[in-house]
Amino acid sequence: MFTVKYEKLLAGRSDLFRASEVRELLKLTEGRNIISLAGGLPDPRVFPKEKLAQIAHDVIAERGDKSLQYSPTIGVTEFREELKKFLSRKGVKINSDDDVIVTTGSQQALDLIARVFIEKDDEIILELPTYLAAINAFRLSKPGMTAIPIDEDGMRTDILEQEVKRLKWLGRNIKFIYTIPVAHNPAGVTMSVERKKELLEIASKYDLVVIEDDPYSYFIYEEGIDVTPLKTLDKEGRVMYMSTFSKILSPGLRIGWVLGNQYAISVLERAKQTADLHTPTLTQYIGMEAIRRGVVEKTIEEARKIYSVKRKAMIEALDKYMVKDAWWPKPVGGFFLMVSIPSYEIDTKKMLPEAIKEGVAYVPGASFFANGMGWNTMRLNFSYPTPEEIDEGVKRLSDLIKRKLKGKTEKIMPVNLFRT
Amino acid sequence: MFTVKYEKLLAGRSDLFRASEVRELLKLTEGRNIISLAGGLPDPRVFPKEKLAQIAHDVIAERGDKSLQYSPTIGVTEFREELKKFLSRKGVKINSDDDVIVTTGSQQALDLIARVFIEKDDEIILELPTYLAAINAFRLSKPGMTAIPIDEDGMRTDILEQEVKRLKWLGRNIKFIYTIPVAHNPAGVTMSVERKKELLEIASKYDLVVIEDDPYSYFIYEEGIDVTPLKTLDKEGRVMYMSTFSKILSPGLRIGWVLGNQYAISVLERAKQTADLHTPTLTQYIGMEAIRRGVVEKTIEEARKIYSVKRKAMIEALDKYMVKDAWWPKPVGGFFLMVSIPSYEIDTKKMLPEAIKEGVAYVPGASFFANGMGWNTMRLNFSYPTPEEIDEGVKRLSDLIKRKLKGKTEKIMPVNLFRT
Repeated sequence: MFTVKYEKLLAGRSDLFRASEVRELLKLTEGRNIISLAGGLPDPRVFPKEKLAQIAHDVIAERGDKSLQYSPTIGVTEFREELKKFLSRKGVKINSDDDVIVTTGSQQALDLIARVFIEKDDEIILELPTYLAAINAFRLSKPGMTAIPIDEDGMRTDILEQEVKRLKWLGRNIKFIYTIPVAHNPAGVTMSVERKKELLEIASKYDLVVIEDDPYSYFIYEEGIDVTPLKTLDKEGRVMYMSTFSKILSPGLRIGWVLGNQYAISVLERAKQTADLHTPTLTQYIGMEAIRRGVVEKTIEEARKIYSVKRKAMIEALDKYMVKDAWWPKPVGGFFLMVSIPSYEIDTKKMLPEAIKEGVAYVPGASFFANGMGWNTMRLNFSYPTPEEIDEGVKRLSDLIKRKLKGKTEKIMPVNLFRT
Repeated sequence: MFTVKYEKLLAGRSDLFRASEVRELLKLTEGRNIISLAGGLPDPRVFPKEKLAQIAHDVIAERGDKSLQYSPTIGVTEFREELKKFLSRKGVKINSDDDVIVTTGSQQALDLIARVFIEKDDEIILELPTYLAAINAFRLSKPGMTAIPIDEDGMRTDILEQEVKRLKWLGRNIKFIYTIPVAHNPAGVTMSVERKKELLEIASKYDLVVIEDDPYSYFIYEEGIDVTPLKTLDKEGRVMYMSTFSKILSPGLRIGWVLGNQYAISVLERAKQTADLHTPTLTQYIGMEAIRRGVVEKTIEEARKIYSVKRKAMIEALDKYMVKDAWWPKPVGGFFLMVSIPSYEIDTKKMLPEAIKEGVAYVPGASFFANGMGWNTMRLNFSYPTPEEIDEGVKRLSDLIKRKLKGKTEKIMPVNLFRT
């Protein structure tokens, strides 16, 4: 058969839709007898299956004329109202000139934000490390990316201010600061109240917009942690707040949202019109009823207990097995933590096939570093594996690292932030 | 409160996310006592509500661990297999090196195709008129657009070849030909077998890819109409075939797909990873079960009867009321027809507010014309309104047009294709 050369038809930007080696490797582990600390999946035990089955039945049987029909691009009106009430109850401040748009998962929110705000050679500011899918979404619009290190108290706002000054001096056009202040992915840390205030002061001083990504703040495992959103502390309408049902109800529904200035939301809405017309009406109706019937809040409560046990198992396993020079900030919340091995001997991407051979998988840290570093770090997930798997997985991984470091004494530096 | 100037933060391409006057006007008609011939909504009477309610219940209650979880970007494996069987039964040829990707409605398929294939100053070829949301999706990547007139037999392949030659002579980089060969939106026409063959010959001769958009071929209202897809006639793997459940099951599920060369699909898959990670798992499980339980085929059968009656009402009303110089190809299938009024007196966009005042809405044709013309045309929908509303709506519209033409005798030309 004659073959059409699709390769030569691709747009230049297709280079950015890279086939990731790591993703391909991790795909191979699926369905095999390998302990995966790699993914970011909720434990399916937390899905409220019976209640959602009933809700799905009801919203189709009773309101199918609407729930099966096309719906507005910005989201189903009733659902958006319910969502605002839910967010208010959770302490998210909604200004009078704010609006909320429903997105097809928060991945789409990141993609729409990139399309609407970023053009080639703009500058954006991220955390170091940060959520890899955010880096990928933003990168498509080819901005410069400046990455601000984090420590146990979140983004280093002192470094942020230095960097903003430097960028301004260089004449760079800074579009926004993207941050995951609470229960960070991948690092598990939470920004202190002081740092949050400093971040907002800097944003105000230099007139910058802040994109606050908040998927995990419902899962905090320690007492006395302040989870006030930046959105709530913001007095100037400069924070766009995004979140999702993926962790607190079900990722298979693909429901995310952005809350913020209504003009900015209206532009996101028009971009979404082209992207997928609207998020499925049916899943929005299901989400709406899940809020109304108290299913979301109940699910959060149950899930927090389950994840709390798993997080404890992860911390204990690392304490027990991991090489002592490794650094990993204790995760106060969320699904992940990040381990840094301060040695040139360890390249976690190269090590991954060996780890898989030992029956354990993780995500090499480099993908989370917008500055191309992080080769000696790895992200470990504790929401999906069982406590026993966590213990065994961390043991296998630690044994492998110990073998690789055997006899090597060289150390880069005592680490206390991700700044390789 | 201090106001952040979001306007000045927008990327240049945001200009393309235009607030459409027409869309705003049509939004105003919602919920009012106005006969809408404007939308493209299925009649909700055709939604198989009870069966889908049961299916939704079952796939969550019995397989919730999977149906509520994250799933592969390319689509749920079992669903893709079921979809291929469904397409094969419908006469769509699947080559051994083909693959299928599930998209969040066919709008996302258009968007991903644009992202992957088109870069600034590439050329694409469309029909004149064509689906307006395709124009909008493609336009974001800033290609040149060459529009080929259609008549009762679909795309004028003689003009197509002239245009391809001209573009090649100009050194333009043609990325693909986008066509809706069967039951065209907006024009309702279907491409003859000869034209389909000629189109494929031209594609072969000049080594071009064809994007075949096929949402409506399940609704053909006349005997003896050939609906063989270009995909099936294609011997060289140069047709990418896209379709959707929106018209044949439910638009609220937002399930579309692209079938074609597996390398091209793999690039679309990576683009989708950034766009929304994956289409909701739940709606894919519902779609899968709807195929398995025969609900899709049954829905098509029932819906065809309902739409056939409405299409008859539309044709009769136009015959009865419309000014006699108007031209409108008889729709052999689909949801729409397009009326052309051959007079400089009629600008359908300017006329819309007057029509709304008379209690009837339509979509001005200009948005469907990639060459910026079509100001004297309008698209009329017959799937959503009742036969009585269709009769009354067309009457009101025709009365308005007659009043506007009163005493005017000027005529551009006897029309037989959309080539204003």
